[in-house]
Amino acid sequence: MMRDVAIIGCGITKFGHLDGKDLMDILVEASLNAIDDAGASEFDFDSVYVGNMLAGELSHQTAIASALVDRINLIPASAERIENGPASGGSAVKNGFFAVASGASDLVLVAGGEKMTGVNTGTISDLMATLNHPTAEYVHGATMPAMAALFTRLYMERYSLTERHLAMVAVKNHANGLKNPCAQLHKLCTVEDALSSAMVSDPLRLYYCCPISDGAAAVVLCPAKKAKEFTPKPVKILGFGHATDTHAFQEREDPIVLKSVKIAAQQAFKMANIKPEDIDVAELHDAFEILEIAESEDIGFFKKGEGQLAVEKGVTAIDGELPINPSGGLKARGHPVGATGVAQIVELVLQLRGEAGERQVRDAQRALACNFGGFGNNTLVHILERGN
Amino acid sequence: MMRDVAIIGCGITKFGHLDGKDLMDILVEASLNAIDDAGASEFDFDSVYVGNMLAGELSHQTAIASALVDRINLIPASAERIENGPASGGSAVKNGFFAVASGASDLVLVAGGEKMTGVNTGTISDLMATLNHPTAEYVHGATMPAMAALFTRLYMERYSLTERHLAMVAVKNHANGLKNPCAQLHKLCTVEDALSSAMVSDPLRLYYCCPISDGAAAVVLCPAKKAKEFTPKPVKILGFGHATDTHAFQEREDPIVLKSVKIAAQQAFKMANIKPEDIDVAELHDAFEILEIAESEDIGFFKKGEGQLAVEKGVTAIDGELPINPSGGLKARGHPVGATGVAQIVELVLQLRGEAGERQVRDAQRALACNFGGFGNNTLVHILERGN
Repeated sequence: MMRDVAIIGCGITKFGHLDGKDLMDILVEASLNAIDDAGASEFDFDSVYVGNMLAGELSHQTAIASALVDRINLIPASAERIENGPASGGSAVKNGFFAVASGASDLVLVAGGEKMTGVNTGTISDLMATLNHPTAEYVHGATMPAMAALFTRLYMERYSLTERHLAMVAVKNHANGLKNPCAQLHKLCTVEDALSSAMVSDPLRLYYCCPISDGAAAVVLCPAKKAKEFTPKPVKILGFGHATDTHAFQEREDPIVLKSVKIAAQQAFKMANIKPEDIDVAELHDAFEILEIAESEDIGFFKKGEGQLAVEKGVTAIDGELPINPSGGLKARGHPVGATGVAQIVELVLQLRGEAGERQVRDAQRALACNFGGFGNNTLVHILERGN
Repeated sequence: MMRDVAIIGCGITKFGHLDGKDLMDILVEASLNAIDDAGASEFDFDSVYVGNMLAGELSHQTAIASALVDRINLIPASAERIENGPASGGSAVKNGFFAVASGASDLVLVAGGEKMTGVNTGTISDLMATLNHPTAEYVHGATMPAMAALFTRLYMERYSLTERHLAMVAVKNHANGLKNPCAQLHKLCTVEDALSSAMVSDPLRLYYCCPISDGAAAVVLCPAKKAKEFTPKPVKILGFGHATDTHAFQEREDPIVLKSVKIAAQQAFKMANIKPEDIDVAELHDAFEILEIAESEDIGFFKKGEGQLAVEKGVTAIDGELPINPSGGLKARGHPVGATGVAQIVELVLQLRGEAGERQVRDAQRALACNFGGFGNNTLVHILERGN
């Protein structure tokens, strides 16, 4: 019954400190890139979805979807903003997918973006923490690094995970990011660099946390049947999953099982009718390096407690059996929160089209993106497939 | 191809100054009312959509959909917040509709809410103005009342509209609100009261503007085919429309034509395969009383420039030929911005089920809601039909 949906274009800005550009400027840039890439600039769009978390708080602007649709001349296309914490981008993709799948829209733009630099980091830490539970977490000063530190400590206590494993994920993602022109952090790092970096929230050092970033990404969606009218290389959205977990971390049955990731992945695999072993490349939400490991387990790529072995053995490197975060991930590409879920999809589209340049994964047919909101309480998983 | 969608339950809080209740409290209250009303408390929900404009700015909380789904025990249902200025509620309904229409979800909760009182009105005026064009409007101090005043002045110059007509809309909506237990303003007003009220932004007096409000509303959606399993009185979503217009008011071809309303209405009527004269009752977005008149024309109920004659003749009164805003509208029910688009649908569901009490419209079969974001640049129209 549901219409099949294809991604026919993608665009992304440089991630990093984009001085002199405001949120709308970067959303416009990524959107126009995606529309150009789709060869859709002469077509009428039906719908525009904008993933963004903090436009009101950081840019003192609301209803930004109305602003975007005006700036890129897509009036009278419908437009709305989706805010879902750091999963805002993935949520925007999902709702764009529904617009096409339902038959309501034939051409949809999904853009995600965030402008986070230029204010002090204390403000950013505070605003990011507003997604935590207001009385059980936020008021007690539980910032995102603090939450991730607690999570990491539990992991280390229960499994063979050490700080060195976190460093190895960072080393891999920095190496990947160096091959990605749009990545924020363009430098190699060694395990020793990581192990000797500043302590942020014990046991998390600077290199085990993503940076604060500006950036935007966009994709164009249409019914799979019409995709070849636009591009010889469409990418099909094979499945999606979206699940929530308790708002407060402390209320989870097992605090180091990411149940929302587990359920979202199960839903996506069921819909796609494939298994974790059928995935050739994945973009995971490593806002903290521990999360790449935890997600890789809860998605079903590796057994629980053994994700770090995959990193150790090089399985998740670009030339490994299951490359994870070839883009550099949130760690090295950067994490403009509302952009991230869309940027993951952009990276996978490039990988599936064989256009990822120096960081190209070998013969990728199927790909998975995991975008993670809250501290693990709101997760979107998308599974993509090469269309030709 | 698209699945038919029904509304099987609705809930609403009292609108007004809800001291001692925060945003989440009122979202929870409306949601549980809607779920109870649908008889769906023992069922698993697939998706939750929350319409809200200013949670980050006013409640210092983000990712509120994750919070809501936790508070009302709907985990692991997917959840996200839609922000689309004052059209956030209508946008949330539309995306909930897509979730069901696409086949992705079988049971969806859509809640809209806003907590706006308890801060000074200058802050609210400023935050509402952030939806205007940042450089063409906002920086010049163009608040919403200022925009509406310019719009009204042009209307008065071109058509036979006088201040007395604005007063008559207010009188009608106050009279309707008095019959609505959840309305914020529970008092009759006379034309003279309105004409002698304080000047807000010339020519707009206090009675031609909606109040600042707290409140929430919610609906439960499912496939039309399954609706009778829940309720003997389902309401079908017959059509929707969603269109944008230029972000800056000054760039519109004709500044007093609400093109986004026109196009959204045309889309909705086309999908529903009915005409404006087939509508028995409507809820329009009278954030300012001029807008009830302008929308009633651009939707196609009355000829352009003649909407005020309908008010004059009592056509839009509860016992008139086309009752508009039997709930009291934004003027008397109140306007918690993120709630409004959902509250309009709740009112129409009650009207179509014949459960609107003292304000019941005679034999309503089909109803229309118009939720208006920006200053007329982002409009959603929904058309509903009695299901039995």
